[in-house]
Amino acid sequence: MNHYLNASTLKDVDIVVELIGGSEGPAKKLVFNSIKNKKHVVTANKSLISKYGDELALLAEKNKVNIEYEAAVAGGIPIIRTLKEGLIANSTRKIYGILNGTSNFILSNMDRMNMNFNDVLNNAKKLGYAESNPKSDLNGDDVKSKIQILSALAFNCFVNNRNINVEGINFIDKTDIKNANFLGYKIKHLGLSEIINGRLIQRVHPCLINKESRLSNVNGVLNAVIIEGKPVGKSVLQGEGAGPGPTTSALVSDICSVLRGNIKYPFSMSVSKRKKIKSVDLSNKIFSSYIRLDVIDKKGVLSEITKLMSKNKISVKRLIQNPLKQKKYASIIMISHKSKDKNLKKCINSLSKKSFIVSKPKFIRIEEI
Amino acid sequence: MNHYLNASTLKDVDIVVELIGGSEGPAKKLVFNSIKNKKHVVTANKSLISKYGDELALLAEKNKVNIEYEAAVAGGIPIIRTLKEGLIANSTRKIYGILNGTSNFILSNMDRMNMNFNDVLNNAKKLGYAESNPKSDLNGDDVKSKIQILSALAFNCFVNNRNINVEGINFIDKTDIKNANFLGYKIKHLGLSEIINGRLIQRVHPCLINKESRLSNVNGVLNAVIIEGKPVGKSVLQGEGAGPGPTTSALVSDICSVLRGNIKYPFSMSVSKRKKIKSVDLSNKIFSSYIRLDVIDKKGVLSEITKLMSKNKISVKRLIQNPLKQKKYASIIMISHKSKDKNLKKCINSLSKKSFIVSKPKFIRIEEI
Repeated sequence: MNHYLNASTLKDVDIVVELIGGSEGPAKKLVFNSIKNKKHVVTANKSLISKYGDELALLAEKNKVNIEYEAAVAGGIPIIRTLKEGLIANSTRKIYGILNGTSNFILSNMDRMNMNFNDVLNNAKKLGYAESNPKSDLNGDDVKSKIQILSALAFNCFVNNRNINVEGINFIDKTDIKNANFLGYKIKHLGLSEIINGRLIQRVHPCLINKESRLSNVNGVLNAVIIEGKPVGKSVLQGEGAGPGPTTSALVSDICSVLRGNIKYPFSMSVSKRKKIKSVDLSNKIFSSYIRLDVIDKKGVLSEITKLMSKNKISVKRLIQNPLKQKKYASIIMISHKSKDKNLKKCINSLSKKSFIVSKPKFIRIEEI
Repeated sequence: MNHYLNASTLKDVDIVVELIGGSEGPAKKLVFNSIKNKKHVVTANKSLISKYGDELALLAEKNKVNIEYEAAVAGGIPIIRTLKEGLIANSTRKIYGILNGTSNFILSNMDRMNMNFNDVLNNAKKLGYAESNPKSDLNGDDVKSKIQILSALAFNCFVNNRNINVEGINFIDKTDIKNANFLGYKIKHLGLSEIINGRLIQRVHPCLINKESRLSNVNGVLNAVIIEGKPVGKSVLQGEGAGPGPTTSALVSDICSVLRGNIKYPFSMSVSKRKKIKSVDLSNKIFSSYIRLDVIDKKGVLSEITKLMSKNKISVKRLIQNPLKQKKYASIIMISHKSKDKNLKKCINSLSKKSFIVSKPKFIRIEEI
């Protein structure tokens, strides 16, 4: 029973490398026990760090051992070490990026091959780019853990899991991707974290980003992280996100770091010096957005839509109406001017209840990056 | 006299930050003296490190102090620390990138604004993106120092200054950039270093790179470095190359690294463990290339050109002939199949002597990245 716990107690073990995964159960037990027994820990476990990172950091500090987790976020990109060391001089304003290879593979292949979500997903499974149960890759949960970890490092705050808006990519279809292209955008699934007026805003959702922007041609299973800091400006790091190669690279760099006796604090600084930063949700953040409404093509529909939008303080910047294959149906594609997120959501919610709407309205935020 | 040397002898000085510049004179004296007096050194001096890096590393090792130089190469990109730490587990095959903000600003603005080299250069000077004497930025010497430093770190070898092919961007005009665009390429000034058959090949020259490639839309004063390593795959780092912000970011990260007591070896490992790798020049490396010949438009010219090419074992993949504004003149633009660099050079040299050639032939290598 519990043979795996041996590692945490054996006298001649100095470093425990945990690759079990999951924030509870054996992984949690092993990591906590190892640290209590003064073993350094190297782990790829993003769920564990995003859930118990603060507790573990305190414990590691008390026991004077390291806990290193480069492989937990974008394995092929040494982002953890870069935030802790290379960019240590900077005050970060915003950190964001493409942090899940599976969802990026799906979106970029839907685009490149003009294929449906499910067809690309099945392909990805065959190619080993998606797990048999890719739920957490597609619904944003995986990125949520990663963005929490990056926030803590970038803003020197505690891991904060409150008020995070998490949306997946399941609802995006190839028509949206085609429309985005036509309008000069790409659709990417991003994790984003920023400080606005002293408040932390963390979120994971699909975004329309300008075709010319840095992340728009990060395709396939690649990951990329952008750090906007002072005084450094904008730094971009790109590489493979996961898989045996990048993960090995990250784990070995962690082990080497422990062997060099480098960095004692898991989150750059002593727990006593880290900050509590209040987080707020998206409600009052303003966005332009892409809205797609498939409607019955009859008199008065457009007028009813625009009336409802105006009631919610949303104005239209661009509007295209295309007939659908099924007669009497039309697709209305809009780019809205900037409005508060809560107004946008309320409006979409009201629209979805209208009898002339034939399928669930699409709403994707535009991120100006 | 020599007041600046005080820093290297004062008892209560622990770290000397050298920002004088230049590989000889006061900077050299200060750095050598500081290390001899057991002071850590933080420097932005690429000339000094690329010329005396090995000597300094040995001296630092003996005196048990650090010499840190993150600001010497692409200040906004923590590439030195990434090679020494984040990607330490990897065996690097090739490292390359855009390493000079001034030359990149000029090339990308010639492209974007359809302007001549000199007009953009004058603009750059006005904007502070080019120094009043930008010679070493434009002729490749600045990048040469940087690529030597990156080679030593990426391949764990001594700094090697032999057989480096260095070409600048002065000879490129807007017609070449226009032609490149038409053919699906961008022209970028790259520093490249790779190991082929156990031999080091370092070079700095303009390249035609595919429009879709990662570096093709790194514009303005931005720098970017790509590392191809095993097992990590391809990692890309992008950021501002120089200027007060990025340089400060790099210097402070170095100072923090010293304060943490991190890394004792200036080039990742003890001098005794670093390798001597023989370097070879470009002669036998094969390239496709862009060739532009402005010629007198008369009978037999094309036949003479192709005959000379064939004699030098160069075959044509693509050829476009455009009439020039001056009557009786024409511009012949070719993409060659792959040939040895020495054959390409020999051919261009022979062509340049022909009486039908009206201006110096253009020859730019195509880099498949």
